[in-house]
Amino acid sequence: MATSVNPPRGMRDFLPAEKARRERVLAVIRDRYAAHGFDEIETPVMEDSSRLHAGLGGDNEKLAFGVLKRALTTDDLRAAESALDLADLGLRFDLTVPLARFYASHRAELPGVFRSVQIAPVWRAERPQKGRYRQFVQCDIDIIGEATALAEVELIGATLDTLVALGLEGCTIRINDRRLLLGMLEVFGFAADEHDGVLITLDKLDKLGVEGVVAELRERGCTTAGVDAAEAFLTRPMTKEFLPFGEAAIRKALPAGVPEEAVLGLAAIGDALGASESLVFDPFLVRGMGYYTGTIFEIHHPDFSFSLGGGGRYDGMIGRFLGSDVPAAGFSIGFERIVDLVSLDATDAADAVALLHEGAPLPQLAALKRALVAEGRRVRLERKPKKVAPLLDALAADGFGAFAFVREDTTPESLELKPLG
Amino acid sequence: MATSVNPPRGMRDFLPAEKARRERVLAVIRDRYAAHGFDEIETPVMEDSSRLHAGLGGDNEKLAFGVLKRALTTDDLRAAESALDLADLGLRFDLTVPLARFYASHRAELPGVFRSVQIAPVWRAERPQKGRYRQFVQCDIDIIGEATALAEVELIGATLDTLVALGLEGCTIRINDRRLLLGMLEVFGFAADEHDGVLITLDKLDKLGVEGVVAELRERGCTTAGVDAAEAFLTRPMTKEFLPFGEAAIRKALPAGVPEEAVLGLAAIGDALGASESLVFDPFLVRGMGYYTGTIFEIHHPDFSFSLGGGGRYDGMIGRFLGSDVPAAGFSIGFERIVDLVSLDATDAADAVALLHEGAPLPQLAALKRALVAEGRRVRLERKPKKVAPLLDALAADGFGAFAFVREDTTPESLELKPLG
Repeated sequence: MATSVNPPRGMRDFLPAEKARRERVLAVIRDRYAAHGFDEIETPVMEDSSRLHAGLGGDNEKLAFGVLKRALTTDDLRAAESALDLADLGLRFDLTVPLARFYASHRAELPGVFRSVQIAPVWRAERPQKGRYRQFVQCDIDIIGEATALAEVELIGATLDTLVALGLEGCTIRINDRRLLLGMLEVFGFAADEHDGVLITLDKLDKLGVEGVVAELRERGCTTAGVDAAEAFLTRPMTKEFLPFGEAAIRKALPAGVPEEAVLGLAAIGDALGASESLVFDPFLVRGMGYYTGTIFEIHHPDFSFSLGGGGRYDGMIGRFLGSDVPAAGFSIGFERIVDLVSLDATDAADAVALLHEGAPLPQLAALKRALVAEGRRVRLERKPKKVAPLLDALAADGFGAFAFVREDTTPESLELKPLG
Repeated sequence: MATSVNPPRGMRDFLPAEKARRERVLAVIRDRYAAHGFDEIETPVMEDSSRLHAGLGGDNEKLAFGVLKRALTTDDLRAAESALDLADLGLRFDLTVPLARFYASHRAELPGVFRSVQIAPVWRAERPQKGRYRQFVQCDIDIIGEATALAEVELIGATLDTLVALGLEGCTIRINDRRLLLGMLEVFGFAADEHDGVLITLDKLDKLGVEGVVAELRERGCTTAGVDAAEAFLTRPMTKEFLPFGEAAIRKALPAGVPEEAVLGLAAIGDALGASESLVFDPFLVRGMGYYTGTIFEIHHPDFSFSLGGGGRYDGMIGRFLGSDVPAAGFSIGFERIVDLVSLDATDAADAVALLHEGAPLPQLAALKRALVAEGRRVRLERKPKKVAPLLDALAADGFGAFAFVREDTTPESLELKPLG
């Protein structure tokens, strides 16, 4: 394996066509986020190991790549109790921990309500499998310092606009509130220390169906009355009349007795965003991360079983490095999942010209290229092969819209551009 | 230090204004490189440790951050002979080693002459000092597969055009050829095994002057006849008549007996690029990296003692991971050095609007924002503070060109935009 020239396991090279495609998608995302008032920031790819392992990253903390301390001696290796002792830095596994650290460091220089964009790679030492990478790009927007539902309205509004700009029509955003989830579990009669486990099972409702969920809850040995109540609620006759998303619909979808404040909060978000088929209240949406404290949301597309992104309110977290409470909410687009669904054509083909020459003198080639570049064109020099057709096909595929042959007497004025493709 | 919220030592956070400025500079660089026919690629930030330590990176290899193997046991730590045994991956210290690995991996999918752009961060575990960072961005263009001086002409032409587009007028590109340097040392009478040391000293000519260089050569104990010949040559009466850059000038600046092929090669580059004050033949330009095999170049600006970038031909290197010889040349812009010299204003201020509200109802705020975004504007919501003037100043500094107060009865139609700044 020492002679392999592949990128490291689970990581990818991007060739020109794919790199250009990814950048086009990112440009649309950046443009929409900027339009909605979010400002892009950047943090280093590494954070101090102690920050990455401070308990804010859930299971992802275990997946952090550790970076070796410098100038370690053999004695250091012998004295180490675990590998973690040898790493003072690590590669970030998400963009939320760095954002919390960034905000704690720069709060005084930032606006009172700070709307951030982070578009950057993260790393996880996962066992590579289909569709999962060890280096991948995350696109996060976050609003820090806004305690009202205005934050959720802006986050969801910006995300919906971005999905439309990417041509991903038909996406829905499922919304719920962790407080409603926990309230529902209390109403059913589960004990507080059962909640985490019940939520893990409930999260599989799409996959297991009601029967499967109820069976797993019983297997877990959960309070029988709670499981019975959950089963009764999940199998009750449902009507579609609770659509569109709004206060009445939310109340109908939930058992009586859940926190009133959370019901009104969700209803206010629906009112502000306007009735739309893109917004769905999903009382069984869970979201994995433990740090969510209020609303949670997830992007779904009818063609895919997995979500295309998600987020929520996490009021407790940003303040952790600051020692004070700071309200915050965020929404992340699953860039690696959506980039393959989006087709955005390069728009500048007409301006891209290939010059086919047969070893023409350097000054002539340089002058021809200079003249075309000065006209605002993109220019590639190509040595004319014996068979021209395959080259022209390759150029068209690379986004070139025109070509010209360079002959002995060709000057910038006499250059004859022919259309390609 | 465990409670520090600063980024890791030698690494930086970028706040919105600085991030936007950096992205504007990068956009100009990307645009010019694309116009000159270069295609952007991307590789993972990590490479296999064995690749990073294969001898292609010179002294920089020692500065590679090592990434810990996963699931190391205490036994692994005890058995390790050095820290390097515990790292299977490392962060790249330049973009050239990854390019060589990328090219070896994807050669069959790339054009015969491949012109690449890489704009990406690299990491070096240097002792942090003023103006040097442990994470910084490199901007490299490279041409692989072109053995003639056409490669140098395209690289230098693209770089000059980029410097002009960035408003960095007054830059010069100093050009030399390693074969001329080594030929000159032979003509002076230095032994082959003295060449490396002599070049290290000659590289300090700007700093030490002729006397200092001669003194250091004598201190090194170099062949006396060689030092005498070098001193005679360096102190000979010089005339300025050898400018502009061209064959006659190059011959005049060199002792007789240097390799003819290299003289003609440099002259051909000058001819193709056209007489220009931006091109300077510098017979004492050395460039540190040992892998250069022919032409070398460096960007200089009259206001700075350090170079703003450099490159050259390195025919031996790309083929190292491939087992065959592949001609290659590259040019790198020192992004972190130039980004502070460039002032590119944001151009979209007129389209950026701030809405100042006093806790208006969510549906009203959402509708106002939606209407402005749909018009193609960038919108930020701001809660109206007691004193408005400082906020307006901050908004103007952030690139906002207009603002409006949101009152109870404000609708998208009645919104009154006022100019800012």
